[in-house]
Amino acid sequence: MSQLILATRNKGKLKEIQALLSGLPYEIHSVLDYPNIPEVVEDGETLEVNALKKAREVFLASNIPTIADDSGLEVYSLNMMPGVISARYAGENVTYAENNQKLLKELENVPAKKRQARFRCVIALVTSTEEILFEGFCKGKIIEELRGSNGFGYDPLFIPDGFTATFAELSLEIKNIISHRALAMNQLKSYLSDLK
Amino acid sequence: MSQLILATRNKGKLKEIQALLSGLPYEIHSVLDYPNIPEVVEDGETLEVNALKKAREVFLASNIPTIADDSGLEVYSLNMMPGVISARYAGENVTYAENNQKLLKELENVPAKKRQARFRCVIALVTSTEEILFEGFCKGKIIEELRGSNGFGYDPLFIPDGFTATFAELSLEIKNIISHRALAMNQLKSYLSDLK
Repeated sequence: MSQLILATRNKGKLKEIQALLSGLPYEIHSVLDYPNIPEVVEDGETLEVNALKKAREVFLASNIPTIADDSGLEVYSLNMMPGVISARYAGENVTYAENNQKLLKELENVPAKKRQARFRCVIALVTSTEEILFEGFCKGKIIEELRGSNGFGYDPLFIPDGFTATFAELSLEIKNIISHRALAMNQLKSYLSDLK
Repeated sequence: MSQLILATRNKGKLKEIQALLSGLPYEIHSVLDYPNIPEVVEDGETLEVNALKKAREVFLASNIPTIADDSGLEVYSLNMMPGVISARYAGENVTYAENNQKLLKELENVPAKKRQARFRCVIALVTSTEEILFEGFCKGKIIEELRGSNGFGYDPLFIPDGFTATFAELSLEIKNIISHRALAMNQLKSYLSDLK
């Protein structure tokens, strides 16, 4: 069985991705299993650059094919912000609640039809022979108050198109079918399956 | 018949896009038909922001549903540069040849397997009720010398995956099947067809 490293220190994300990639003949580790691999600074200007940077650095340190992802919320009327700075929109080391408040403030008085947004996920796969990017989108809109307690980040403010519930009100089973990360992971999974 | 404006002043691009969107019940104009619409400065940090900006400004001035596109070449080993600055990579008001020389210089001594790149095209559609983005990719690699005289921009340096010819050696018929712009336009076309 081949090995893959997932360049994340987030145990929730690791679990989610292991579930999404289940069924493939790969043993999926996280960088947490390799304490000597230094932490990667996510200072790229785009999701693509961050995902590549994380995957490259972990691959260089481990020599094991590495997957890294970066995701962001892109709000059309805010010129696709917060995007790559989604996790630190309200500042460094802020809480999800602070980011959500900042987003609501930026969208104050913005009418419903101008609150379109999308979550975007970019996954980089770096091996000894190649670098590949995969991408997934989930389109929807930003509502005016927080709803739901599942998920994380901007989930309580985001209603995916075709639904009436926010990401934070939907079950993880549903979210794992329609989410940006699931769609990007499905592409990665197809790619890895074809390799075999 | 409904009308659409294409927010470009480039007659070659207008012709290409009219061909790609042929068969749809829309009359496609360019901003050149509306001399009072001011030129839009493409100073966004991403292709998405530029495409939205162009489409919004022309829609605001014309009140006619507007399509705008922005495209760029993203080279993995250059951290997805030149990307949004593809047209001005070597500076303001440069020629395609100068941009190509700059790219070759940046990739000097970079081995073949690290010369992966992709063209990316983002199309924005802005109407009175919505803003939508479409995206297309064409993956390939950057070679070490210019080859071919069709197309424009970085076409003589880019070989799409699965081919041995550069974009500048391929016919426009082939390019219009596999290119990033064609793939994004096909999505737009599907979307517009479904509206009818």
